[in-house]
Amino acid sequence: MVGKLAVGGGAPVSIQTMTNTLTSDAAATIKQIEGFAAAGCDIVRLSVPDEASLQALPEIRRAISLPLIADIHFNHKLAIGAIEAGFDGVRINPGNIGGAENVREVARAAIAHGTAIRVGSNLGSVKRELLETHDNVSAIVASALDNVKLLEDLGVANIKVALKSSDVLETIQAYRRFAAVSDWPLHVGVTEAGTLFSGLVRSSVGIGALLLEGLGDTIRISLSDDPLKEVLAARTLLEALDLRHDLIHVVACPTCARSCGDVAGIAREVEAAVANIKANLTVAVMGCIVNGPGEARHADLGVACEKNGAMLFKHGEPARRITTTEIVSTILTEIEKETSL
Amino acid sequence: MVGKLAVGGGAPVSIQTMTNTLTSDAAATIKQIEGFAAAGCDIVRLSVPDEASLQALPEIRRAISLPLIADIHFNHKLAIGAIEAGFDGVRINPGNIGGAENVREVARAAIAHGTAIRVGSNLGSVKRELLETHDNVSAIVASALDNVKLLEDLGVANIKVALKSSDVLETIQAYRRFAAVSDWPLHVGVTEAGTLFSGLVRSSVGIGALLLEGLGDTIRISLSDDPLKEVLAARTLLEALDLRHDLIHVVACPTCARSCGDVAGIAREVEAAVANIKANLTVAVMGCIVNGPGEARHADLGVACEKNGAMLFKHGEPARRITTTEIVSTILTEIEKETSL
Repeated sequence: MVGKLAVGGGAPVSIQTMTNTLTSDAAATIKQIEGFAAAGCDIVRLSVPDEASLQALPEIRRAISLPLIADIHFNHKLAIGAIEAGFDGVRINPGNIGGAENVREVARAAIAHGTAIRVGSNLGSVKRELLETHDNVSAIVASALDNVKLLEDLGVANIKVALKSSDVLETIQAYRRFAAVSDWPLHVGVTEAGTLFSGLVRSSVGIGALLLEGLGDTIRISLSDDPLKEVLAARTLLEALDLRHDLIHVVACPTCARSCGDVAGIAREVEAAVANIKANLTVAVMGCIVNGPGEARHADLGVACEKNGAMLFKHGEPARRITTTEIVSTILTEIEKETSL
Repeated sequence: MVGKLAVGGGAPVSIQTMTNTLTSDAAATIKQIEGFAAAGCDIVRLSVPDEASLQALPEIRRAISLPLIADIHFNHKLAIGAIEAGFDGVRINPGNIGGAENVREVARAAIAHGTAIRVGSNLGSVKRELLETHDNVSAIVASALDNVKLLEDLGVANIKVALKSSDVLETIQAYRRFAAVSDWPLHVGVTEAGTLFSGLVRSSVGIGALLLEGLGDTIRISLSDDPLKEVLAARTLLEALDLRHDLIHVVACPTCARSCGDVAGIAREVEAAVANIKANLTVAVMGCIVNGPGEARHADLGVACEKNGAMLFKHGEPARRITTTEIVSTILTEIEKETSL
């Protein structure tokens, strides 16, 4: 349990992202988290790098009902402070928190407050001696198992685990191998996946391949971009894998020499306008008469562009011809009708 | 074989995209294809919807050495014309080309010229009677098998097959089931995957999951956007899965409250500048001192941002401090040194 949210044990796969405001700026951080909530985020992580950030946590906690996790490095007192501020989880790397006694203190506080602990085993922060004697995947897995054992021995019973590399294949292999020997819930992600463009590619294949194998209880798509896009990307991935049904899926054809309309522009405009709507609907934007009517028929709503306009399809049947300038507004109006039924 | 390029039989996975110029405008089409070639594309498809497009094919063929495929619907004479113009492949849907005699004529021409035929079985163009008696996946697979059998019976020995749905899970299931009963090479893609944003997510997980299982001989990432981005996305996916090693991989952290520099901006600028360079190199752009030095150590080149600058890492060792304004130019200069060795 992360607060009131179940992670693992058959619960729906939840979506995480991380604030990138200064945590010490409570107002800005609260505003960003409210945006995440509206976009469909389930769990929010904040880094707490210093005393000023810690001071802001109670105000943030009071304002936000979503489960909150504090990301802590180096200083165990910050972890204990976050737990005492009512955060639902702390993410620590037991290897960099200053020794066994500090880990014990964090564990004691977490048990007392029912706070979850996420063990983050990242290739970038695995101990050097492990890396010298193991390949990368074995080192990540061994580090995670060591840290989990440490917490288990201290009586912590609310653990989730992440095993991350910026290499997609290493990430997939690390999760598979850890899952073969441990039942703790998994937080899945490809770390430092990159820009919006390459990060979407790497995260989607890495996280998606694991989800297809049934691995992964909560996910974060890491992007060097606006974290709101991480939430939308995660919803898109979960919808694509039939694990969540709260996204309007815009089917759109790539354009080719046969295309009549500005398919890309129409699709982008519609997708942006409906991003925060939580509904299970497929809308097809097609550029021509070859695949257009077929795809439009399979969608709840569809347009197949023709010269000077488009044919609107509703639930598989041609409804009426519309002009080019009406396409976007007609789709949005029809979506509104569908979702307000 | 698609021209001189092997597809299947253990050949490297090749990358395809499709022009979206008017094919009848030979100059514009040639220019677009030259851009694809520079970006790392292996095979280019053009739609040939009419006689004017057909007339332009000889000029395009003379100018381009990459394998070229003509995408044909409805009119078998266009397919025969493309074959006679020296195109390396035709993509047809035997179900919409006007009957068995027309398919036979196309097959005869393809055999005579050594031209490959791609059978495209798309959910959007599967026969209605198949859809009425089968679930979607079975209908796509049955349609592909029927069409392949038709061509095999006509003596065609140079076939590849695509089985596409705009639904990611249906796509994955269709390829798995077809591959279980047929050895023909597979052209893999998720059709009408959507805008750049959602198309990258859907295509990466759909195509990537199949590639991880060893399925897929040539791929197209379909995006409602500039087709050049399809090529770069395909290279990114193949690099992520260790199937191609000609891309500079920019590792970049998502920003958080700990970040010092404009990681996203730096990473985007570097990624754009090196997109067309064919080299196997990892460059890490990291925002802080937590994971920064660790990741930067694993990369060929790396920067870990600090206040007012960054530490440059080369092959795992700290090299020197640089100022904020020097970060991008220093990375690009160092990449140039590495790739000109």
